[in-house]
Amino acid sequence: MSRINQLTNKLNLEANQAFLIFNQYNITYLSSFNGHAATILITKNHNYLMTDYRYFEQAKEQAVNFKVICRDRTKQSLNHLINEILLKESVEIAYFESDHINVSNYKNLFEELNTIKLIAKSRLVEELRYLKDTQEIESIQKAAKIADLALEKMLEHVKENVTERELANELDYQMAKLGSEELSFATILVFAERSALPHGIPGHKKLKKGDLILIDFGAVINGYHSDMTRTYVFGKANSQQKEIHQLVFNAQKAAINTIQEGVTGEYLYQQSERILQASPYAKYMGEGLGHGVGLELHEQPFMGRGCQLHIQQGCVITIEPGIYIPDWGGVRIEDDIAVTKDGIMILNSAPNQLLEL
Amino acid sequence: MSRINQLTNKLNLEANQAFLIFNQYNITYLSSFNGHAATILITKNHNYLMTDYRYFEQAKEQAVNFKVICRDRTKQSLNHLINEILLKESVEIAYFESDHINVSNYKNLFEELNTIKLIAKSRLVEELRYLKDTQEIESIQKAAKIADLALEKMLEHVKENVTERELANELDYQMAKLGSEELSFATILVFAERSALPHGIPGHKKLKKGDLILIDFGAVINGYHSDMTRTYVFGKANSQQKEIHQLVFNAQKAAINTIQEGVTGEYLYQQSERILQASPYAKYMGEGLGHGVGLELHEQPFMGRGCQLHIQQGCVITIEPGIYIPDWGGVRIEDDIAVTKDGIMILNSAPNQLLEL
Repeated sequence: MSRINQLTNKLNLEANQAFLIFNQYNITYLSSFNGHAATILITKNHNYLMTDYRYFEQAKEQAVNFKVICRDRTKQSLNHLINEILLKESVEIAYFESDHINVSNYKNLFEELNTIKLIAKSRLVEELRYLKDTQEIESIQKAAKIADLALEKMLEHVKENVTERELANELDYQMAKLGSEELSFATILVFAERSALPHGIPGHKKLKKGDLILIDFGAVINGYHSDMTRTYVFGKANSQQKEIHQLVFNAQKAAINTIQEGVTGEYLYQQSERILQASPYAKYMGEGLGHGVGLELHEQPFMGRGCQLHIQQGCVITIEPGIYIPDWGGVRIEDDIAVTKDGIMILNSAPNQLLEL
Repeated sequence: MSRINQLTNKLNLEANQAFLIFNQYNITYLSSFNGHAATILITKNHNYLMTDYRYFEQAKEQAVNFKVICRDRTKQSLNHLINEILLKESVEIAYFESDHINVSNYKNLFEELNTIKLIAKSRLVEELRYLKDTQEIESIQKAAKIADLALEKMLEHVKENVTERELANELDYQMAKLGSEELSFATILVFAERSALPHGIPGHKKLKKGDLILIDFGAVINGYHSDMTRTYVFGKANSQQKEIHQLVFNAQKAAINTIQEGVTGEYLYQQSERILQASPYAKYMGEGLGHGVGLELHEQPFMGRGCQLHIQQGCVITIEPGIYIPDWGGVRIEDDIAVTKDGIMILNSAPNQLLEL
């Protein structure tokens, strides 16, 4: 069944109803259009994609099952155009993505649509995106493979006094050369005590013997993200670095080993948590364990306390426990894992042991 | 006067009032914190910045005039924390950025804050950001300079059969090596008839003699963006390429020559429009003429039909007329221009004539 049909079935969309979609990832998922500045309107009989002159050609090429409308932004507001279509289609009730329209725009829309009832809907398309088909998983796998290869190339540049920024640039460049469409997110590549910042920005710090190197990065293929973290040491690792790395490694393994259909994100979190809490580093553990990954870097299902969604066939998730000790450093290990009908599949293959570089 | 004081004066913030800020660029502008996942709450006496463990260390380092609060996301919702602070500060009226909170979050906030009145405010911080100080202009200038140098380096890679993607990767890599913090936006670098797509994505098309090359890209320094477009030809330009390039060049010059304090964005647009409309290519002209550039790539003031904001000292704007002919190609020329007390300053210096490469 087409994604649009899955959606209209889920919504039970009737003849006098419409659904307005504002989120760009949801728009890409439903229409294949991967530009910006678009809005989708679905009625029982028609699918509209509205954009402007900058994306009109691209949208016509990509969104083949949509009537693509080019709006002159200097002559017509988006809300006016929406109203025009809704009236033409005799719509009485318009559902809208309430997570993806801001209060100012909503007020304007509400005023424009004075004869049409607006009803908020949350996460409808996201709930379809939560389960990936084979093609989607393959895209994430390709992105993960590119990250693996780029990491290998980047490691050739590791040497005394190289800066975080220089290594991050090499990594980003290699991913682009290998076909990544963009960065999955701003690469985190930090040395020594700066690895205690879970979202550190690569700076001008120079690499010294004995430093931890934490690298969290990913590639994008067909709009699908990968996300991997490795923590290595430059030179010989000391006993505490080894101990903490082994601890995080064990915590990750404990969670990965229990992934199966039907368990919750909280359950997986608890498997890691138990190991970290039993260690001398309990108070330094990171807060969450992981997240779904797909058209967005962070999406459902999430792994952490209170996460009650069930893992199902088609989920692709990250498992990324970490220990972060201020002024000492941090260790995080992260992999992307697909849940398939044949069991789990770890999509990264770069070594996750403590390499001494 | 500090930016926070400018804001509270503008808002006329009283003792029992608060202002909630959700937009990450506005947060960076006010606090210097440049991570994610933050919310600012300003009262008459205190400035709070709320974030979570991932950004806590960074926020404390950067947001020195703020009380930084680390929220455990698994134990407390953001709205609950906001309510707690507002009650502690005896706030009765909370203004909020209505352009930057979605309808779902607003509903939750509204329910949590049942004794506090919420009042929507639009573009308050953006109106401060509209006028840049010397340091901000210097950051954009540095970013523009990096783009100039990176373009020069990239041009060394132009040769027959090189792909759009390969050249774009070189450009991005050079910008990173020169110190750009990230891409200002996904680089547009397209050949031949694909240059008619105003926001084309670099693909696997190979460069051939006589092709147009349209390059739209920028760097980021201290969070500030640059944005430049050049259109060149690989090999000898034909007469139509020359004619259209000259036309766009003239249209850009006409607008730039009339930039001064007090004119509107619409007025500048009309100067370009007049030239393009008098040509045989009138129907192929792009819709807008340009935009402000700063912490965001696109910000106030905008240059186009209906844009009534006045250009003032401290504005940094792009002027980017274009002609886009489907199946033939497009020509766009774009520069960043600062309006200073000594007149205008063009921040890019890469050649904007039709280079034959």
